[in-house]
Amino acid sequence: MSIHIPQRILVAPSGFKESLDAETVARAIAAGVRRIIPGVQVDEFPIPDGGEGTAAALAAATGGELVPVVVSGPVGDPVAAHYALLGGSSRGTAVVEMAAAGGLRLVPRDRRDPGATSTYGVGELIVAALDGGAERIIVGCGDSGTSDGGAGALEALGVRILDRDGTALPRGGRHLIDAASLDLGGLHPRAADVEIVLACNIHNVLCGPRGVARVFGPQKGASPEGVERLSTALDAWADVLERHSPHGGRMDVRTGPGSGASGGLGAGLAAVLGARLAPRFEVLLDGDLLPQSLDDLMSRADLVITAEGAIDFQTPRGKVPAEVAMRARIAGVPVLGIAGSLGEGAPAVHDIGIGAIASILTVPMRLEQAVEQGEQLLRDAAERSMRLVLLGSALAARAA
Amino acid sequence: MSIHIPQRILVAPSGFKESLDAETVARAIAAGVRRIIPGVQVDEFPIPDGGEGTAAALAAATGGELVPVVVSGPVGDPVAAHYALLGGSSRGTAVVEMAAAGGLRLVPRDRRDPGATSTYGVGELIVAALDGGAERIIVGCGDSGTSDGGAGALEALGVRILDRDGTALPRGGRHLIDAASLDLGGLHPRAADVEIVLACNIHNVLCGPRGVARVFGPQKGASPEGVERLSTALDAWADVLERHSPHGGRMDVRTGPGSGASGGLGAGLAAVLGARLAPRFEVLLDGDLLPQSLDDLMSRADLVITAEGAIDFQTPRGKVPAEVAMRARIAGVPVLGIAGSLGEGAPAVHDIGIGAIASILTVPMRLEQAVEQGEQLLRDAAERSMRLVLLGSALAARAA
Repeated sequence: MSIHIPQRILVAPSGFKESLDAETVARAIAAGVRRIIPGVQVDEFPIPDGGEGTAAALAAATGGELVPVVVSGPVGDPVAAHYALLGGSSRGTAVVEMAAAGGLRLVPRDRRDPGATSTYGVGELIVAALDGGAERIIVGCGDSGTSDGGAGALEALGVRILDRDGTALPRGGRHLIDAASLDLGGLHPRAADVEIVLACNIHNVLCGPRGVARVFGPQKGASPEGVERLSTALDAWADVLERHSPHGGRMDVRTGPGSGASGGLGAGLAAVLGARLAPRFEVLLDGDLLPQSLDDLMSRADLVITAEGAIDFQTPRGKVPAEVAMRARIAGVPVLGIAGSLGEGAPAVHDIGIGAIASILTVPMRLEQAVEQGEQLLRDAAERSMRLVLLGSALAARAA
Repeated sequence: MSIHIPQRILVAPSGFKESLDAETVARAIAAGVRRIIPGVQVDEFPIPDGGEGTAAALAAATGGELVPVVVSGPVGDPVAAHYALLGGSSRGTAVVEMAAAGGLRLVPRDRRDPGATSTYGVGELIVAALDGGAERIIVGCGDSGTSDGGAGALEALGVRILDRDGTALPRGGRHLIDAASLDLGGLHPRAADVEIVLACNIHNVLCGPRGVARVFGPQKGASPEGVERLSTALDAWADVLERHSPHGGRMDVRTGPGSGASGGLGAGLAAVLGARLAPRFEVLLDGDLLPQSLDDLMSRADLVITAEGAIDFQTPRGKVPAEVAMRARIAGVPVLGIAGSLGEGAPAVHDIGIGAIASILTVPMRLEQAVEQGEQLLRDAAERSMRLVLLGSALAARAA
């Protein structure tokens, strides 16, 4: 028996947060694979995850464009944001990336207070997309730095959030404790006519013990008391949405799937605009957005290589490699995972179908070095991994 | 076709310099392999390289013992050194590890001057072995911090090195510029009767452009002028060895193979005592020293795993993984190399038959951290590598 060389390899990575976008990761891995197996067909399928880079990735994949818009960022400073107008068969669809207008990265470390930040800029991007003629708007919900229940976004769309005296509330989730009613008279005229879909983590909910204030408040900078105050304010907000918004009475705004997406943006847009809250990979991978189908490519691959900045105990909880592994398991294709770092609990990914993992690190180095040399390290890691895979294939051939 | 799982794996690593001895490296790798392939037969064969740890490794492998001896170290300070009395069928053989009495690690960084350091302590260890009744003495020559042409060792053995006035020279290679004759009258009575074999890098020579002063002087701390002075002194020493030592006239003391081993210890012991200068792996692996034969184990293995602290451009130049790869190539067994760090030029090892390489590093970290966690990192790296190998085997099975 001769050595089996994979003929077709699918490279389906996530981006590396604050370092390499998914396209670059895919390209680097593909280059490493090709150095070891000349002539192999490598399909590059960078996976958008709804967070940073999603709009750019989808624009690139469909031949669309990014539209720059200056908006009011999460702490009120102007931010150079953008949304995507997709091309090809997805023409007419806009992608608003929450992270571009309200992302945690846009909140200076010394101003991290989830009771104060606002999704106003996200609303401005939606308005820009509506004014730009979009017929469908996908909102990517990852990497948010806000917890205002979508109140800021609704305000940008023309909704007034009023206290008992009929006075409009200041921005920031903590003020929602005083929310009493909504004035929808100024709502953007196209908001109701356009399909709005939020690509979200449906496990995130607005209220209760697993609500956004308690789960994400601390990592967004809230003190223990701040968390409780914010939680109470979001309870009050849920009351208002239930009683005063067009769709609030027909959904579970408190604990419905995705109600807590992007600090409650999900609940606000679903209740007021009728936006659909959908699992992010279902929206981003399974819809008609992309010209190629991940599952189709997977069914034709001998091997799938995925990647993430860090593979650790969190990876199985819905991260990109977990999604790739789940689909690969259905297709019956082995999966290899490459990571910038292999953290605590990384071997847990073997339980979800990732057969082997590899680190890009070669010598003791600082994080900054690893980030700086990321592309080359990734290419080399792909090369080393393929050599190990071929060695296994050679062992099998030797035994046969 | 089912997945081929290796049945028998040979683990044949070097030690990791100043961090893990070869036994610990072998054990850690074996543990990682067993976690992935329960029931696999793993043969652990830590490879002695003639440097630090060689005496302990050979004592352990043969059921012998280490004999502690306090000697005069390379800069004259007392050093707790040792030699090994081997056991089993190698009873009667002593192993003197040059590094234990004259190693570079014993020279404080602020006193690194190869014109001043002495092999006197190495001679003391040889004397101790002679007095202990050894019938054969193996001298491991790696990791030396001296360049005195073996003059210090000879002095400890009773040889007087005289200037033109018949005065004994001070210790240190630079004084050999004044060497004029030898007085062998006080030579240890057993020195001539016992077989002495130096396990050395035979590419190291005493004099000339590739002589020890020029090749190793700088890394042992010599200035450019110091290198030239030392080179001239060793030329004078070669003259004396040629004209006044029992075996000096019958060998090429200047550029003969191994004459430069351990800063010229090779030339001194060969010329005066008739010691044999032999390639280190021939002595340490192919002789009758060890109860098991590396080549035998290799011929029975499905896979060989070797390891070194750093795999880089120097590895193919006679390092342990290169030796293992050469033997594995003859046996037709695939080789995997695991390294503490993969430095510049590491992929060159693929040209000498190492099919795949892997790094132990998982996250950005400092060298000290990597050293501290070395054992666990090695075990985990072995585990990850075996998973990649099995993935390759699974690919082959899927294709068949």
